[in-house]
Amino acid sequence: MLRNDQLDQWDRENFFHPSTHLAQHARGESPNRVIRTASGAHIEDRDGKRLLDGFAGLYCVNVGYGRPEIAEAIAAQAKELAYYHAYVGHGTEASITLAKMVLDRMPANMSKVYFGLGGSDANETNVKLIWYYNNILGRPEKKKIISRWRGYHGSGLVTGSLTGLELFHKKFDLPVSQVKHTVAPDYFRREDLNQTEAQFVAHCVAELEALIDREGADTIAAFIGEPVLGTGGIVPPPAGYWPAIQEVLRRHDILLVADEVVTGFGRLGSMTGSAHYGIEPDLITIAKGLTSAYAPLSGSVLGDKMWKVLEQGTDENGPIGHGWTYSAHPIGAAAGVANLKLLDDLDLVANAAEVGAYLQKGLRDALGDHANVGDIRGEGMLAAVEFVEDRADRRFFDPERKIGAQVSAKLLETGSVIGRAMPQGDIIGFAPPFCLTRDEADMIVAAMTRAVNEVL
Amino acid sequence: MLRNDQLDQWDRENFFHPSTHLAQHARGESPNRVIRTASGAHIEDRDGKRLLDGFAGLYCVNVGYGRPEIAEAIAAQAKELAYYHAYVGHGTEASITLAKMVLDRMPANMSKVYFGLGGSDANETNVKLIWYYNNILGRPEKKKIISRWRGYHGSGLVTGSLTGLELFHKKFDLPVSQVKHTVAPDYFRREDLNQTEAQFVAHCVAELEALIDREGADTIAAFIGEPVLGTGGIVPPPAGYWPAIQEVLRRHDILLVADEVVTGFGRLGSMTGSAHYGIEPDLITIAKGLTSAYAPLSGSVLGDKMWKVLEQGTDENGPIGHGWTYSAHPIGAAAGVANLKLLDDLDLVANAAEVGAYLQKGLRDALGDHANVGDIRGEGMLAAVEFVEDRADRRFFDPERKIGAQVSAKLLETGSVIGRAMPQGDIIGFAPPFCLTRDEADMIVAAMTRAVNEVL
Repeated sequence: MLRNDQLDQWDRENFFHPSTHLAQHARGESPNRVIRTASGAHIEDRDGKRLLDGFAGLYCVNVGYGRPEIAEAIAAQAKELAYYHAYVGHGTEASITLAKMVLDRMPANMSKVYFGLGGSDANETNVKLIWYYNNILGRPEKKKIISRWRGYHGSGLVTGSLTGLELFHKKFDLPVSQVKHTVAPDYFRREDLNQTEAQFVAHCVAELEALIDREGADTIAAFIGEPVLGTGGIVPPPAGYWPAIQEVLRRHDILLVADEVVTGFGRLGSMTGSAHYGIEPDLITIAKGLTSAYAPLSGSVLGDKMWKVLEQGTDENGPIGHGWTYSAHPIGAAAGVANLKLLDDLDLVANAAEVGAYLQKGLRDALGDHANVGDIRGEGMLAAVEFVEDRADRRFFDPERKIGAQVSAKLLETGSVIGRAMPQGDIIGFAPPFCLTRDEADMIVAAMTRAVNEVL
Repeated sequence: MLRNDQLDQWDRENFFHPSTHLAQHARGESPNRVIRTASGAHIEDRDGKRLLDGFAGLYCVNVGYGRPEIAEAIAAQAKELAYYHAYVGHGTEASITLAKMVLDRMPANMSKVYFGLGGSDANETNVKLIWYYNNILGRPEKKKIISRWRGYHGSGLVTGSLTGLELFHKKFDLPVSQVKHTVAPDYFRREDLNQTEAQFVAHCVAELEALIDREGADTIAAFIGEPVLGTGGIVPPPAGYWPAIQEVLRRHDILLVADEVVTGFGRLGSMTGSAHYGIEPDLITIAKGLTSAYAPLSGSVLGDKMWKVLEQGTDENGPIGHGWTYSAHPIGAAAGVANLKLLDDLDLVANAAEVGAYLQKGLRDALGDHANVGDIRGEGMLAAVEFVEDRADRRFFDPERKIGAQVSAKLLETGSVIGRAMPQGDIIGFAPPFCLTRDEADMIVAAMTRAVNEVL
């Protein structure tokens, strides 16, 4: 129960919200939304308005809201030992157990996990470790990181540079010079409409090869990518993309970082996106699904190849100069253990695959023929609908019309369903909790159909 | 109660610990320490060994371990709403209330708080906002950040660059080019032993002026400093340092960032280090003391001057492209509210001042005349003892002898007291919980005296 009636004022006077129009919020021109409780796939605000959260927070509350098993694990840990650090070989039963559980769920060549707090700091750790790795190997020039346009890898200075979206670069002097971007594996948005999917993959490979040639393979340390593009528009890769990219990277001795912050622990209907697409990364980023967001926790999962060099590094240079106070925080670790157990106990990864496919089919059946729907796509419990002004020549709407934002707002207001207007393009994304039922999927489809028909 | 006997093996096979000798840990050559529970100023490991934690974790468990008020707040929040995001004007009662409570405790010119997870990401946010600020003001060249040698501001790529300690730079290609370091305000380690404290402050000011002249004031955006150097050796500033530095910065229109991650919320016996020393920052970093580490949460507290420009920025450019999934995480916010309330209810800031002074006096009385003790210093609930091979000419020990590490190990083994061997120099640091009693302070002094006499 909310205990005070000054929240509006306090909010606007004191609270700097992320990804927000700061001036409008401070002036009271945009709504603030105070969320009070949540259960399953539904959240409820302070006015008692109940919403079906088709985006699981920020695609992170994978097991659904209000799980007592996780809340109780957090409560027990908070009572017994809310905090101790993990520096210099310290741990807790929860953090050590979780390290084992994480490695059990990762590809076989993965060796160790460094625990951070969120996806951004995990990718920051990754870049640090990649640079350290090449310094230990005596390759001080091999440092650049290749990322893709439309990739999302964080919001820090370097991690925001890895991100390939204009919103995260503009006015922040990003990307930094060590980050180079290559073409987004977004077949729907290919420049040459005549390309087949196979031709488009060949184009992606050729562009990557050309970039490597231009920069020199001996200057390029790593390639980072999400198995499925997330914030860039929820775009599964074209068939054959990952094996073809991987072949190029191996040939040039370039490390592969799979950013599994969104896909990790089941969102595609497989435990990892790497397993789903046969990717064999050297480094894996995990975050959201690790705890289903019940507490902040992320991880950098290192393969054997990198780990051996890191060991060599500390033998030569002493303890590694990297650490966060809250690395492997006990509350996050306890949440992670309970979350991964729940995922298994309730067979939620299989449900993500099954109900996710049902949701995608529902969207296709309802909206596939709409004159302004250019693409409906998805994988596992991820789906997206992309709008166009004209289907025949795939002409996009003027961004100023904010069609995506309009549909998202209508979906919320008239349908009480949360779908996310993705930041670049007129795209509505869905990433519901894995526990979504077929009835709830039907509600999303019905609300989305109504919203699209009202706006367009 | 620990439920399994495989923790050793799982730990060494799977867990990448921060600031650790990775190879020795993996090979089983260094001890692992599994912490099970904690209460007040004491922690207990899985073997039942009880230790007096003279460093409050990593100077963060300020209210002491095992506080039921905070554990219950976390438990209640985890049950009601473990997670919802804070993007686009979303909040919870806890996060909004905490924003208000933070601003109430900060200097009067502070305006808004952006919540992050740890100190490193808060300083990352700060640099992003400083660059954004000068871009909005049309000063794209004014971007460099001045930090001090021996400062500690994080462990990321840019934040680790702000940090002025070799351990955090070596083999990571840091510092990045936008960060420039000036002299550490460490009077004990002044180069010219004949300088008075006032002369040393004049020297610090002259060095800063010279750096600004060399780089050009129009290229320098900000200066960052901890009110008291923390990880760099726990060094209070020489008298008059902050007003003199501040005068230079104002004259050159350089923003001042006070990194209060260690000093914030009472460690110096004042609510902030800024209030303690009369610093008037434009931006304040908070973390550890905000939640006493019961859950990860940090903050960037912005003054009016910066906030106005950020508002102008979103009016001109739309929503700000910055955010972490776990910004203002409900569990952290609930912990923060309960923590700040407890600090007041138990008058713990006053206790930090009083027992902290008692601890420092105890150390001086016991060790002040020891032939190898060069300096005993502190402020509030922070204290440090620095060793020298020869007092008369302040000759330091050969770092290879690892005198600090030896004393710290002896303190732990024979005294069951945790004091931290600071990473650069032979320095033992103490930063106990604010609830430390005089008896516990006596225990620290007795154990430290014994340890020093055994090693030296």
